[in-house]
Amino acid sequence: MPLVRISLPQNTPSADISAVSDAVHHALMETFNVPELDRFQVIHRHSPEELVCTHEYLGVSHGGHVVFVQVTCAPGRSLEMKKALYAKMALDISQASAFPAEDVIINLVETSRENWSFGLGIAQYSQ
Amino acid sequence: MPLVRISLPQNTPSADISAVSDAVHHALMETFNVPELDRFQVIHRHSPEELVCTHEYLGVSHGGHVVFVQVTCAPGRSLEMKKALYAKMALDISQASAFPAEDVIINLVETSRENWSFGLGIAQYSQ
Amino acid sequence: MPLVRISLPQNTPSADISAVSDAVHHALMETFNVPELDRFQVIHRHSPEELVCTHEYLGVSHGGHVVFVQVTCAPGRSLEMKKALYAKMALDISQASAFPAEDVIINLVETSRENWSFGLGIAQYSQ
Repeated sequence: MPLVRISLPQNTPSADISAVSDAVHHALMETFNVPELDRFQVIHRHSPEELVCTHEYLGVSHGGHVVFVQVTCAPGRSLEMKKALYAKMALDISQASAFPAEDVIINLVETSRENWSFGLGIAQYSQ
Repeated sequence: MPLVRISLPQNTPSADISAVSDAVHHALMETFNVPELDRFQVIHRHSPEELVCTHEYLGVSHGGHVVFVQVTCAPGRSLEMKKALYAKMALDISQASAFPAEDVIINLVETSRENWSFGLGIAQYSQ
Repeated sequence: MPLVRISLPQNTPSADISAVSDAVHHALMETFNVPELDRFQVIHRHSPEELVCTHEYLGVSHGGHVVFVQVTCAPGRSLEMKKALYAKMALDISQASAFPAEDVIINLVETSRENWSFGLGIAQYSQ
C-alpha cells in the first residue's frame, strides 16, 4: 500500500538509486510490517536548483546531497513505529548510498485503506 | 478541485499521454461529479529505474508498463463512488492507451475544501 | 515542516525558479509562521503536455504559464491564515516572476506533526 515518492539529485548513480529504493522498502517491511511484494515507488531526479533544503534546521546540518522520501500510507501506525521507521530508513540509506543520515528527509501522508487500487480497477482493501 | 499527479514511463508517446490524461479526467467527471472545467493535472515521466512496481501483489500481476495516478481531492465520496472511479479509470486507460488495466495504480489523498486556491490567491471554495 | 512540491514549465529560467521558491517560502513565513530555516522544497519541470490546466474555472482564466504549488504541512491553521497564505503567495509570485496571479494554483495537504523526520532518522517534532 505505501506509495513512496523519492526525490534526489539527477546525478545520483544508478547503484545509489537502487540502494535507496531497497533501503526505503526494507525499512517499511521491518517497522511498518509492509509485505515484501507491496512495493510501489516513484523516483524523481532533480537538478541542484530544484532541490531546496535549508542548511540547518532543528540542530541538523544539511549539505548538498539530500534525499526527500514522501510515503503515502495507511493511517494507524503508532508513534513508536514511526520513530522506528525514520531511524531504520535514515540509517540504512546512509550505509548503502552516498546520502548521509542527516540528509534523509522523511514525510508521511496517511490516507484510508479504501483510497487505493492496485490494478484492474479494484479497491483491493475494501471489497 | 482534484489535483492529479500521474507518473508514467518516459518513452510514453504523446498520444498515450493525452489518452491517459483524458481518461483520468473523464472517470473523475463520471464517478466523482467533477466539473469538466475542473481539470488540473501534472504528469511526470520516468526512466525504467525510476518507476518501481512489484511484479505481483494481491493477485494482480504487473509488467513493465505501469502508470501511477495519485488524486488529491475533497473528502466525502462514498466507497461506492471510489470503487466506480477505480473501475472506470482503469478500464478507460486500458482501452485508450498501451497501459493494461492491471498496471493502473490509483491512490486518493483527501484534503479539505478550504485547502485550495485556483488562481488569483483566492480560496474559491471557502469565501 | 512544510514540504513544498512545485511544478512549473521546463523552460522556466533559473531566475524565475529562484523567485518562485523565495516567494513561496516568504509567504509561508509571513502567514503560517514557518521559521526561516524550515525550508524544504522540491521543484519539478514539465513539458507543455505534462502540465494540464483548464482554460477557465470558477471565473479565473488560465493561460499557458501555470505553476502548481502543493504544500504538505501541519494541520491546524485557521481559514483566515490559509486565505492570507494564498493571497500572499499568488501576489508575490506574480510580482517576482513571469507567472501571473491567475495561474498560481495552490493546494495544502495537512499531516500530523509526528509524520516528519528532518534528518538523522529522528522524529524531531515528537520526541
